Amino acid sequence: MGAKVESLCSPNLPNPMTRADLIAHIRAQSSMLCVGLDPERTRLPEPLKDHPDALFAFNKAIIDATAQHCVAYKPNLAFYEAEGLAGWEALSRTIAYIRSAYPKHFAIADAKRGDIGNTARMYAEAFFTRLDFDALTVAPYMGSDSVRPFLEYPGKWAVVLGLTSNPGALDFEELELAKGHALFLEVMRAVSQWGNSDNTLFVVGATRAGRMAEIRGAFPEHFFLVPGIGAQGGNLQEVLDAGATDFGGLLINASRSILYASSGSDFAQAASEEARKLKEGMRGYTGS
Amino acid sequence: MGAKVESLCSPNLPNPMTRADLIAHIRAQSSMLCVGLDPERTRLPEPLKDHPDALFAFNKAIIDATAQHCVAYKPNLAFYEAEGLAGWEALSRTIAYIRSAYPKHFAIADAKRGDIGNTARMYAEAFFTRLDFDALTVAPYMGSDSVRPFLEYPGKWAVVLGLTSNPGALDFEELELAKGHALFLEVMRAVSQWGNSDNTLFVVGATRAGRMAEIRGAFPEHFFLVPGIGAQGGNLQEVLDAGATDFGGLLINASRSILYASSGSDFAQAASEEARKLKEGMRGYTGS
Repeated sequence: MGAKVESLCSPNLPNPMTRADLIAHIRAQSSMLCVGLDPERTRLPEPLKDHPDALFAFNKAIIDATAQHCVAYKPNLAFYEAEGLAGWEALSRTIAYIRSAYPKHFAIADAKRGDIGNTARMYAEAFFTRLDFDALTVAPYMGSDSVRPFLEYPGKWAVVLGLTSNPGALDFEELELAKGHALFLEVMRAVSQWGNSDNTLFVVGATRAGRMAEIRGAFPEHFFLVPGIGAQGGNLQEVLDAGATDFGGLLINASRSILYASSGSDFAQAASEEARKLKEGMRGYTGS
Repeated sequence: MGAKVESLCSPNLPNPMTRADLIAHIRAQSSMLCVGLDPERTRLPEPLKDHPDALFAFNKAIIDATAQHCVAYKPNLAFYEAEGLAGWEALSRTIAYIRSAYPKHFAIADAKRGDIGNTARMYAEAFFTRLDFDALTVAPYMGSDSVRPFLEYPGKWAVVLGLTSNPGALDFEELELAKGHALFLEVMRAVSQWGNSDNTLFVVGATRAGRMAEIRGAFPEHFFLVPGIGAQGGNLQEVLDAGATDFGGLLINASRSILYASSGSDFAQAASEEARKLKEGMRGYTGS
């Protein structure tokens, strides 16, 4: 893990994660799997439904069951904010647990923040300093001053939306600009100038596998965070064939297919098995 | 206030706010001022710096000092998230206080959320049901399924980014599309089809006053939320001349210029005076 300093891994201090760290971790784990931690109270397994601290208990069980098969975790903020104060507390405990138990795993706050400069700096403070995430997903609509503040934290990453996995990606992201290419490509080109492959990932949806090869050709050095495998219908093999590189190059997310693999008392074991299968599917693509 | 049912105004029940309610409130107050509640710990006035519940105490003082001069409040989530759990608690107490003390004031969560359908629904749950905001700012990059869920709550509003007030608006929002108009206009046209002027506002920055008349011409019935007056340099008179309508049509936001009008023990009085001056500047434009 090169320059990574383990003693910095306390919940309230920055925990630098370099590109070399990430590449080494992917090789060591033989996996590019990112587990999305999106706990929905109504979908929690039976044994946890009446647990006083259900969200964190669920996350901890899922993390312990999947850590050997993945390299990253990605809590989606909406699922915590929907629970109010208790949700925010569950989020804080979850990132602290990842930091202490699995300090080499890459932790992404899926918050899709984007706002003017002084506000963006407050979000960076919230997610990089206070909560010690490695990375934050960022919505690019408002342009440079809404993205750049997230690129100023050494060892922290902005994960900027490029071409997303949802049907609505057709509405604006895929629109052709007068200058002759799609909006999402313009966004990715601009953002790749503001930052670099050491502090920026791009979101490229698995459901857009048909465009993945073109996008990889344009951005050969960047890691892509790939949502859309599983519940959203993206195909793992197509994503790997089009997007993987000699350094791995992908963090492939799965959320619901792992979290809710079983609703019974075997939920953690079922999640582990689902994660293991996804990892197996990545064999041979995790860098050389 | 027409069909507004005051008994629904508890913190955990929806508090419907119709377009007619908003128009009536603007007329009654002779104001279109929205006060941005963006408390920064390092900028709090001296008397509150050591207060055990400083953020809420500050907000409450600002709200009480400005309520007679404004029609809306807009907490920016970043400033609460940067404070962790205590910040989320201050936000919860702030919206509950607005609801109980000033139930006719329009409450906007400035969160700029935007994500796929199942996630967007969780954000709607967080801000419309659990926290009982009237409106939520929404980032449109991901398209229809990231916006539509916010339009399905009767009496609640999506405030969708159109043309923002920051320098970065030039990077993508103002880009010309192959079909011959700017991206932000395409966004506004599409969103105005998904929703209507009873459940959608648009963000149109005060620093874009030169384009305000064109935008108003294209969207004559929508309310615009206008940031950028004050610290960002937008001109109030230009905004009013180009954007006001016979129903008012604007919510004009000021944050830092009000919140930090004084750093001494007279901060609330100074905030009140600043809000009063802005309200005076809107005389004759608040509908007829």
